[in-house]
Amino acid sequence: MSDALDTSALLLPPGPVDLTAVETDAAPGFAGKKSDGEKALVGLETELADLQERLFAERSAGSERRILLVLQGMDTSGKGGTLRHTVGLVDPQGVRITSFKAPTDEEKKHDFLWRIRNAAPPPGTIGVFDRSHYEDVLIVKVHEWADADEIERRYDAINAFERELADGGTTIIKCMLHIGVEEQKARLQERLDNPEKHWKYNPVDVDERAHWPAYQEAYEMALERTHTQVAPWHVIPADKKWFRNLAIGHLLLQGLRRLDLQWPAADFDVEVEKKRLAESDTA
Amino acid sequence: MSDALDTSALLLPPGPVDLTAVETDAAPGFAGKKSDGEKALVGLETELADLQERLFAERSAGSERRILLVLQGMDTSGKGGTLRHTVGLVDPQGVRITSFKAPTDEEKKHDFLWRIRNAAPPPGTIGVFDRSHYEDVLIVKVHEWADADEIERRYDAINAFERELADGGTTIIKCMLHIGVEEQKARLQERLDNPEKHWKYNPVDVDERAHWPAYQEAYEMALERTHTQVAPWHVIPADKKWFRNLAIGHLLLQGLRRLDLQWPAADFDVEVEKKRLAESDTA
Repeated sequence: MSDALDTSALLLPPGPVDLTAVETDAAPGFAGKKSDGEKALVGLETELADLQERLFAERSAGSERRILLVLQGMDTSGKGGTLRHTVGLVDPQGVRITSFKAPTDEEKKHDFLWRIRNAAPPPGTIGVFDRSHYEDVLIVKVHEWADADEIERRYDAINAFERELADGGTTIIKCMLHIGVEEQKARLQERLDNPEKHWKYNPVDVDERAHWPAYQEAYEMALERTHTQVAPWHVIPADKKWFRNLAIGHLLLQGLRRLDLQWPAADFDVEVEKKRLAESDTA
Repeated sequence: MSDALDTSALLLPPGPVDLTAVETDAAPGFAGKKSDGEKALVGLETELADLQERLFAERSAGSERRILLVLQGMDTSGKGGTLRHTVGLVDPQGVRITSFKAPTDEEKKHDFLWRIRNAAPPPGTIGVFDRSHYEDVLIVKVHEWADADEIERRYDAINAFERELADGGTTIIKCMLHIGVEEQKARLQERLDNPEKHWKYNPVDVDERAHWPAYQEAYEMALERTHTQVAPWHVIPADKKWFRNLAIGHLLLQGLRRLDLQWPAADFDVEVEKKRLAESDTA
C-alpha cells in the first residue's frame, strides 16, 4: 500500500540522541513517491475531520480529553507549512494555534512555563504550538541566556509540566522538524530571490545559522531529556515538504485514533424531544 | 458566468428592515445551481489564500489592517458550517475564531462589550465571531433581560465600538444567516434522528423556537439600528447551505480585495543578505 505510513519509524528511540544519524531528506515508513504522498495527505482529511468532531463533541458530555501537537524546528523547517497544509485539513473551530515569539516583558516576569500554561488547549480541542517551551532550552541554551543549572532545572520542569497535562487528559505529540543545513540555505535563498517572500526573511536568521552545530547539540540534549512515555518525541525528516506534511498528519490521526472516540449519548429523552419539536408552534 | 456572485444582492438596503421580504431559500446574485455553487466555492480558495497571506505579511511591515467577520443567526442557521467550509479555506494561522456563549460570571461583571473587545482580531488576521455582541440586543431583548432604554443604549454603543474598530484598521463584514422557520424544524429534527448529532441538540432550542417572531423582530431592529457605512449588514439566505458558504466566501474575498494588499518591501538590503547567506558557514 503506497498510501500507508508506519509512524513507528518516526518515533525517537530511547537513549542518547544523534541527529546526524537521521537523514533529513528521507521518507521513513512510507514507500511511495511525492505524488503518492500528496494524495495520501488528502486521503487523511475525512477521518481526521470525523475524529476531530467526535473529540469536540465529547466535550459537551464533560470529557477533558484534548490533543497538543508541538512543532519545533530550525528556521525554515516548515512549521508554518505544516499548519497550512496538515492542520488546515481540520475544522478550524476545533483547533487552537499558538505561535510563540520572543517573550514579551510581561511574559519575562513569570516562569518560562507561565505563557505556555496559558496557551494549553481546552478540552475537546486540538492545540498546536508553533515553537514552544522548548525554545527555553534551545535558543536560550545556545546563547547562554541561562546557566547550565537553570537549563537542567527546565528539562525537569518540562517533564513535570507535560506529565501534568497528560494527567489532565491531554494527548501530547511532539515533533522535531529536522532539516538539513543545505536545505535551510536553499530556503533562505528562495526568500531572498522572491520579492513575495521578503517579508519572511529576517537577517537574524543568518546570524542564527552560524550557531547550527550548537543548535543541533541543544536539540539532541533536549530530545533526550524530555522523551517520556506520556510525551514522546518524533523526529520528522523535513527536507521533503510533502513527507513532513504527511508524517505529521499521520501522527495526528494516530493520536486521535488511540482515543477511541465515541459520539456522546443524548442527555435528554429523544422521544420526548421529537414530540416537543413536532408540536413547536412559532406563530 | 455561473461562478460569479454579485454581493450587492446581499447588502441590506437602508431604512426599515423587513426580514419577511427576504426569501430564505433564495440564491440572490448567483445564477448557478448547487453543483455550480460548490465548485465556485472551491474556486475561491487560491485567491483567498493569496490575499490572506498578504494581509498577514503586511503586519510585519507595521500595518494595522485586519478583517472582522461577524456571523449571527438563529440556532441551526449554519454558523458552524460556515466556519468549517468557508473560513476553513483559509490558512488557520491567519484566522482567530471566537465562539461566544452565555457570558461567564467574570464577563457579567463588565460591560457587554468588554469580552468582545478582548476578542477583537489583532493586525494581520481575519477574526471571526460565531455569535457576537449582537446577542446582547437579541436574546437579551427577546427575554427582556434588559429594559428598553438599555437596549437603545447598546445600539449606540455598538455603533461607536464598531466605528472605533474601523478607525483602527478593521474591515467589518457582518452577516445575518437567515433561515426559515420550517428549515430550522427540519435541522433540529435531523439532530434528533441521527445519534451522531445528538450532541448538537439542546432542548432549550425548542423553547427558544417558540419565540421565533420576537427574534425576527429583534433582528430587524438590530439590523436597522446598526447598519452603518463602516459596518454594514448583509442578509444571507441560509436555507441552502451551499449558497450560504459561497455568499460568505465572496464577501470575505471582496473585503480582502478592497484592501488592495501588496507584499511588503524588504526592510533589509537584499544584495547584502544574499552575500551574507552565501558566506554563511555553519561548521
